[in-house]
Amino acid sequence: MITLYTWTTPNGRKVSIALEELGLDYEVKAVNIGKDEQFDPEFLKVGPNNKIPAIVDGDAPGGGLPIFESGAILVYLAEKTGKLLPASGPERYKVLEWTFWQMGGLGPMLGQLGYFAVRSKDKPPEAVERFTTEAARLFGVMDRQLRANPYLAGADYSIADIACYPWVFAASTLLRQVAPDAWGDFPGIERWLAAVGERPAVKRGMAVPQV
Amino acid sequence: MITLYTWTTPNGRKVSIALEELGLDYEVKAVNIGKDEQFDPEFLKVGPNNKIPAIVDGDAPGGGLPIFESGAILVYLAEKTGKLLPASGPERYKVLEWTFWQMGGLGPMLGQLGYFAVRSKDKPPEAVERFTTEAARLFGVMDRQLRANPYLAGADYSIADIACYPWVFAASTLLRQVAPDAWGDFPGIERWLAAVGERPAVKRGMAVPQV
Repeated sequence: MITLYTWTTPNGRKVSIALEELGLDYEVKAVNIGKDEQFDPEFLKVGPNNKIPAIVDGDAPGGGLPIFESGAILVYLAEKTGKLLPASGPERYKVLEWTFWQMGGLGPMLGQLGYFAVRSKDKPPEAVERFTTEAARLFGVMDRQLRANPYLAGADYSIADIACYPWVFAASTLLRQVAPDAWGDFPGIERWLAAVGERPAVKRGMAVPQV
Repeated sequence: MITLYTWTTPNGRKVSIALEELGLDYEVKAVNIGKDEQFDPEFLKVGPNNKIPAIVDGDAPGGGLPIFESGAILVYLAEKTGKLLPASGPERYKVLEWTFWQMGGLGPMLGQLGYFAVRSKDKPPEAVERFTTEAARLFGVMDRQLRANPYLAGADYSIADIACYPWVFAASTLLRQVAPDAWGDFPGIERWLAAVGERPAVKRGMAVPQV
């Protein structure tokens, strides 16, 4: 059994979607970041960076294996099952390219845009503009890729799509309203959002945790 | 022969350090981001996100294999050589955890702190404070790990250390001056910085590209 520590955020939902897609048995522990539960000493043992998501794989050889960072968890689950990430060859690195692109670019930049456009006290114009421009640029890169390929890494659905979906879904709804200049005419992304969003495992994963 | 597209930045130097550590034969193509050379159509074929670093491995089976995103490149080089990233087991995922932690946290947050504290026109106080606080938090997480372990992922030097070194080196010099509140008493980081910094391959990698 895998224990998933998560909350109702895009990073958390990457992992619940992957667990659903892979058909792995898991239990959910909701870590309410609105109540700072990610700073509980108990959680720190699993997530030393004080951020969700984290997992403990109770079935790992040698006993309970804790893993933090959504990207590391996605690679772990894919390698554990031999699915959603090819074991070798150019296709493997296409998946890793776009997975890291989400982790290092799309996620952090949309996160900062969300902060400065919505939650910030001052909403400093330079910061809002900086992250709006970068979000629009990243969506342009993604759209170019998705106009040329069914999925981010090419022909096959992979952990790269799972990493991006919850962020782009949030951007296509909430963020489009608060930072309209970040979103343009992205037919590739729109097609992909619809295709990924209608997968049953994605629907189930997006509903985790139930709070 | 591997072709490395890079510039004098922390993300670029992750890859030159790895190439030096692994003893791989490579040539350097300097992409001057001060002159927007990352937007050249020629570079776009290798780096669709318009960012350095990127590589083309001319020795890959099937012909020249382009890879972008520093994290994907580090994993590729480690898997190509069987070094700096264990092939399986808990140690593998310790390395991936801290590699993703750098890619999704330390790198983007220090990048934004550098921007708002140094290059920004307005230097909005809320943005400077936000990224200063987050940088200090991340350094605290890293220091805790490095007080308990020789290297980020545990006993062995890995791509996680290579990913973090150029960023923390820059932070420990430049950033400490412009955002002093981001840096505290970090004996674990200081020891690690010295140990990693005196590796001959790190010294050579940090000098790439020569411009």
